[in-house]
Amino acid sequence: MEIGKVVGRVVSVSKIKELEPVKLFLVQFTDHEFKVKDDFVVAIDTIGVGKDDMVLITQGSGSRFTKISEPVHTDASIVARIDNPDI
Amino acid sequence: MEIGKVVGRVVSVSKIKELEPVKLFLVQFTDHEFKVKDDFVVAIDTIGVGKDDMVLITQGSGSRFTKISEPVHTDASIVARIDNPDI
Amino acid sequence: MEIGKVVGRVVSVSKIKELEPVKLFLVQFTDHEFKVKDDFVVAIDTIGVGKDDMVLITQGSGSRFTKISEPVHTDASIVARIDNPDI
Amino acid sequence: MEIGKVVGRVVSVSKIKELEPVKLFLVQFTDHEFKVKDDFVVAIDTIGVGKDDMVLITQGSGSRFTKISEPVHTDASIVARIDNPDI
Amino acid sequence: MEIGKVVGRVVSVSKIKELEPVKLFLVQFTDHEFKVKDDFVVAIDTIGVGKDDMVLITQGSGSRFTKISEPVHTDASIVARIDNPDI
Repeated sequence: MEIGKVVGRVVSVSKIKELEPVKLFLVQFTDHEFKVKDDFVVAIDTIGVGKDDMVLITQGSGSRFTKISEPVHTDASIVARIDNPDI
Repeated sequence: MEIGKVVGRVVSVSKIKELEPVKLFLVQFTDHEFKVKDDFVVAIDTIGVGKDDMVLITQGSGSRFTKISEPVHTDASIVARIDNPDI
Repeated sequence: MEIGKVVGRVVSVSKIKELEPVKLFLVQFTDHEFKVKDDFVVAIDTIGVGKDDMVLITQGSGSRFTKISEPVHTDASIVARIDNPDI
Repeated sequence: MEIGKVVGRVVSVSKIKELEPVKLFLVQFTDHEFKVKDDFVVAIDTIGVGKDDMVLITQGSGSRFTKISEPVHTDASIVARIDNPDI
Repeated sequence: MEIGKVVGRVVSVSKIKELEPVKLFLVQFTDHEFKVKDDFVVAIDTIGVGKDDMVLITQGSGSRFTKISEPVHTDASIVARIDNPDI
């Protein structure tokens, strides 16, 4: 899994039916010291996050292993909020 | 998922039967501020897009989770049009 | 999917049984203007290609979605020849 | 698989239920001479490791092939401790 | 698939049960002219290789499509020895 910071929402009107009930967040990845990098991913939210949260991202088929993400054709999901003391 | 801009079609006469009914688009990826990069992918269209549309791309096995893409041996599908106000 | 140019064959005498009936091609990837890059992949041929052909490559589990590639432990298959006018 | 060095824990209070029983480690990848690089991954522990251990990381669907990791929506697992003499 | 050169063994005493019967090799990837690069992978051996052999590597779920690798939580397997005349 990778670490990222939630930086915004992705708005979409025309989308596949399965994507309608989920929230799409733009998440920038961080390095191993939790500093934000330019790389990013659009991930669906499975736990309820907000802007600036540090989160854990699962990519690939594992991103569809939650009740919320299972029917969605995603390749990235937010699966945990990170509470490390040095963030 | 990643964000991309539809820049053209890919034309193919000799192809596997499963690819015949789908449209192949050349999509250039963007950075987190929606600026187009050199990296690109060839993705099948599952929602009906046109040139210059900003779109969401799912890669890997998740790209075959739609009715249109399920029987196709693709590894990338366009799954949503992006309507963010800052694009 | 990615775009590549067929540049040669890969010869192998000692290989797993499932690889015996398939042809292995060395394919160099191209950029979005069809210019050949240094990156490459070894892909199995599912449509019948020849040297210098521009082709479409599917990677990952999608590469095993054709009759020819299904029983093969490949992670990359040539699935279409590209006939764009600007190649 | 890739080689990495365990450098710390990832603390998470709000997380998906399946992640609760597992330990999340921050693992920095190494090069082919076992020197630590900046790249890293957050992986679940399936064998019982500690800080500074050199470990083997499996990514993708293979990371869910152990009893501990099977029900978890991870994309990276620690599957072995490395005992090479030159580490 | 990718091309690599077998450069050493990975020794592991503490590992998951499924990894015990397989041999783990450190394989450095090559470029398209068979020159060794710094990038590498740890792969399991499914054909019987030795040091300095040039080999074909399958990554991802395809790496578990052989009798030897099927029960193993690997993400990379050596599936062929390469015998190209220009190596």
